[in-house]
Amino acid sequence: MAAMKWWGWGVEGVEFTHEDKPALGPFIKEVLGLDVSRPTTAPLRFDQLQIADPTLPDALRAALEEAVGAEHVSVDPLDRVVHARGKSVRDLIRQRRGDLPRVPDVVVRPGGEDAVTAVLQAALKVDAVVIPFGGGSSISGSLEAPADEQRPIVSVDLGRLDKLLSIDEHARLATVQAGVFGPHLEQQLNARGYTFGHFPDSFTHSTLGGWIATRSSGMQSDRYGDIADLTRGLRVVTPNGTLVAQPVPSQSTGPSVREMVLGSEGRLGIITEATVHVRRLPQERKILGYLFPTFAAGLAAMRDVAASECSVSVTRVSDAPETMFSFATRKRSTLLDRVQSKALQTFLQRRLGFELRQMCLSFIGYEGSAGHVAQQRKAVGKIVKRHGGLCIGSSPGALYDQKKFDTPYIRDFLLDRGVPADVSETAMPWSRLQTVYDAVSAAGHGAFAQLGVRGYLMCHLSHSYHGGACLYFTFAFEPSPGADMLVEYDVVKSAIQQAFVDNGATLSHHHAVGTEHARWLEQDISAPGVAMLEALFSGTDPGRNLNPGKIV
Amino acid sequence: MAAMKWWGWGVEGVEFTHEDKPALGPFIKEVLGLDVSRPTTAPLRFDQLQIADPTLPDALRAALEEAVGAEHVSVDPLDRVVHARGKSVRDLIRQRRGDLPRVPDVVVRPGGEDAVTAVLQAALKVDAVVIPFGGGSSISGSLEAPADEQRPIVSVDLGRLDKLLSIDEHARLATVQAGVFGPHLEQQLNARGYTFGHFPDSFTHSTLGGWIATRSSGMQSDRYGDIADLTRGLRVVTPNGTLVAQPVPSQSTGPSVREMVLGSEGRLGIITEATVHVRRLPQERKILGYLFPTFAAGLAAMRDVAASECSVSVTRVSDAPETMFSFATRKRSTLLDRVQSKALQTFLQRRLGFELRQMCLSFIGYEGSAGHVAQQRKAVGKIVKRHGGLCIGSSPGALYDQKKFDTPYIRDFLLDRGVPADVSETAMPWSRLQTVYDAVSAAGHGAFAQLGVRGYLMCHLSHSYHGGACLYFTFAFEPSPGADMLVEYDVVKSAIQQAFVDNGATLSHHHAVGTEHARWLEQDISAPGVAMLEALFSGTDPGRNLNPGKIV
Repeated sequence: MAAMKWWGWGVEGVEFTHEDKPALGPFIKEVLGLDVSRPTTAPLRFDQLQIADPTLPDALRAALEEAVGAEHVSVDPLDRVVHARGKSVRDLIRQRRGDLPRVPDVVVRPGGEDAVTAVLQAALKVDAVVIPFGGGSSISGSLEAPADEQRPIVSVDLGRLDKLLSIDEHARLATVQAGVFGPHLEQQLNARGYTFGHFPDSFTHSTLGGWIATRSSGMQSDRYGDIADLTRGLRVVTPNGTLVAQPVPSQSTGPSVREMVLGSEGRLGIITEATVHVRRLPQERKILGYLFPTFAAGLAAMRDVAASECSVSVTRVSDAPETMFSFATRKRSTLLDRVQSKALQTFLQRRLGFELRQMCLSFIGYEGSAGHVAQQRKAVGKIVKRHGGLCIGSSPGALYDQKKFDTPYIRDFLLDRGVPADVSETAMPWSRLQTVYDAVSAAGHGAFAQLGVRGYLMCHLSHSYHGGACLYFTFAFEPSPGADMLVEYDVVKSAIQQAFVDNGATLSHHHAVGTEHARWLEQDISAPGVAMLEALFSGTDPGRNLNPGKIV
Repeated sequence: MAAMKWWGWGVEGVEFTHEDKPALGPFIKEVLGLDVSRPTTAPLRFDQLQIADPTLPDALRAALEEAVGAEHVSVDPLDRVVHARGKSVRDLIRQRRGDLPRVPDVVVRPGGEDAVTAVLQAALKVDAVVIPFGGGSSISGSLEAPADEQRPIVSVDLGRLDKLLSIDEHARLATVQAGVFGPHLEQQLNARGYTFGHFPDSFTHSTLGGWIATRSSGMQSDRYGDIADLTRGLRVVTPNGTLVAQPVPSQSTGPSVREMVLGSEGRLGIITEATVHVRRLPQERKILGYLFPTFAAGLAAMRDVAASECSVSVTRVSDAPETMFSFATRKRSTLLDRVQSKALQTFLQRRLGFELRQMCLSFIGYEGSAGHVAQQRKAVGKIVKRHGGLCIGSSPGALYDQKKFDTPYIRDFLLDRGVPADVSETAMPWSRLQTVYDAVSAAGHGAFAQLGVRGYLMCHLSHSYHGGACLYFTFAFEPSPGADMLVEYDVVKSAIQQAFVDNGATLSHHHAVGTEHARWLEQDISAPGVAMLEALFSGTDPGRNLNPGKIV
């Protein structure tokens, strides 16, 4: 897996474009007043960056070379810059400007757990800092060293630990090295007839260990569960030795150590291996599109699906602004055009009483045997109908399924045009979805107004559970002329996050805490909760050598 | 809810008897050589106990009276003795003998969270020990103070916190005070059309807070989930203030604080309130009986059910010894007689090729709409048939359902006859069930042989998951003449527990660690896991005032 661009998402040569999407330019012109036809800004060239020389004591370098082999110890400037941060919009803006953080002094690539142990021991011996690195896709600031860190910083890239080690066919558990990227994991499993079923938006550029360290969630979590549900056994190299959590289905052995590793963002150790649930590749897999007259109707339908006896793999419903955005990003002559056909629009308005600007696009996924899929579709169809919704077939879902991993590229496209765009997501009980949605809408638009900028805010529900769901917000705005876009970005992002915790929603459903969300942690899990995390971290890592400054 | 007997399970006047079970006496005679017709030993009378006077400094007493009201501060000897221990067979044996532990100095019964806070603060102020008490049903030694504890000991009985506070109908979440007992919780929920669906064997004598503090599991966990799945929001009075975990469905906020409280056995604070999943009372509820030719066939069928698209509420299959025991405990002229009818036996042997002494009884439960139940029964029926099993209808299941909460009483019945009986349960991946079963059988029978005693060991599978299941072992033996039964008990219990951890199974699936299982903890969760628990506990409770000595 090639490393991502030092200044943006994904690999060189792949980027988002408006040119094959005829409606997008006019749409962005309308909502943000922005002409997308040509880029206005560009990242610096790499040779323009001022990169501090590495601080790497000879003894540490020798020990690291001994640990992983000299060819896997890198002080290459590009390597160090790529490993310095994740891919939050704040990271992208600063990287593009050449505003580098405290860059790691060395990047090491251990080839096995023993090498990871040797790296950690070598670092602890000289009081160096260790930051584990998976795909580098964090958007919560989980990878950046504290600005004032004086000690040597070792970035431990787990990319060589990429093997499927074994599959327990009876228990449908796979033991996998933690550095494996999403596509390579699926490829190894698919070859044996299995799937992991974990598909976050970052899938192509994130790793199993990263998913575990951040409590990730994938778009088929309704069926497969979040990473916390999927992960059973663990091996984690800690300052006290290798933590081994057995892959038992459930246990009563005090507070769950497994759950302490989940979301630990490198604060407790380096995850080297996990034993995870896998499933047989489904006979049939289908994502159907639906339209609802309003977002409220869509939310109510998803709630009823969750409360029913139906089992689905995906539940997703966009609000009206996101629906309009989806229609605007459709490519030439795709089947989504049908949705905007005059005939359908007339039908929706005249026969179903839709107000087109309130209309919401939804996807519901089904997996399993053909009989199961048919039965679930039918049962869900009744619920959808009860809420005034309409099935529009499988073409929009197939399209969504194909392009879902391209979404993160759009941020670079917009930054090239001077526009920051970002996401904030949360989860809450079903009873609070509308309240949180309204509060976030007010907070986001309030922030735009306060800044005097034109902005766009859109949202979808995804990840349904028994008791609630995730709401995922995306926002973009054209900064004030002459303003620092980071300062203005903070105003909007903060308003949205604050609206979450003020309304009984969590600071993040699946993007972790890192540094970006740390200031809301106490408002979310309460001061005694923070004290418990501090007790855990400081007791396990008294020297603060393990990814210091994250979470608390 | 009346307190349990100070010397045994349940309330005065309720006990297990062989008299209405004609086959039981002969069965026990056959397998243990024991004549059950008359008791041979009895507990001491309460007035024969030597109970140390309480150590309760005036200032502490005054502060506790201030906190909860004088009428809820008790130094009554019976109250103190009842609160001194749980109900493990080790507890029962010692209580019956008058071998009392370090008895709490005072029992307080707070009526609200403020009172709990005041109690904890009062105790911390004078460096007293606080032990939360729910139903007192622990069988892992989670309630007993260390023998050498010199500080005053306050038992905090949560029994007055027994209210259902609210139901969020949209999110199907109920907020409930933690001291509520199982039956009272279901009664309050049923009145509103809901059920919690958590039915551990201890149901009648255990509380919501106790279930959470021990990571409990109920017999319908296949459908409803373990207590860890059912519990969302929490309020916990800790030395740092009240921990508040929001009832969000999932979150990415660092290591889960909620999961730290689950299984914490009072080491982190006192649970006062929880917000939990509830469900509408099902339209239909059915538990069907099945027979399998062998335990291996039954295990394989349960594994296939777990891997299928079926959704069931109960999966349970007994091994041949437990099946024989079940038949032996049937009452006069119950429908279970049919199973032992000559006609059926002939059919099983001649037509299905059963070897009757290998035959295994199984229960599978179904819940939901009538259509759902019918469909699941049919789908499961095919799997059962594939493994050579036979459905024997709903009567055995109904019987099992009625008498399931009576099981714990049998230990007192056997102790009255000089026989210790106990349980050890575990969980493991599907691929290891047979290995663990064989290893535990060998270990248990090996221990009987080593002691030169006649013993009985039986087992059932319960609680199926994607990746594995729980195996629940029950054993009894007639001690050697003149031997200390506790010493011999330890030989058997230890052999079984050791076989668990030696074979990739956990030390407990749902009975917690307490003091009984603490010595296997490091072998289960590894030394770095123990270090993480120690960091959490000592950082949160540096004075070791909260139920010291449990878990680690």
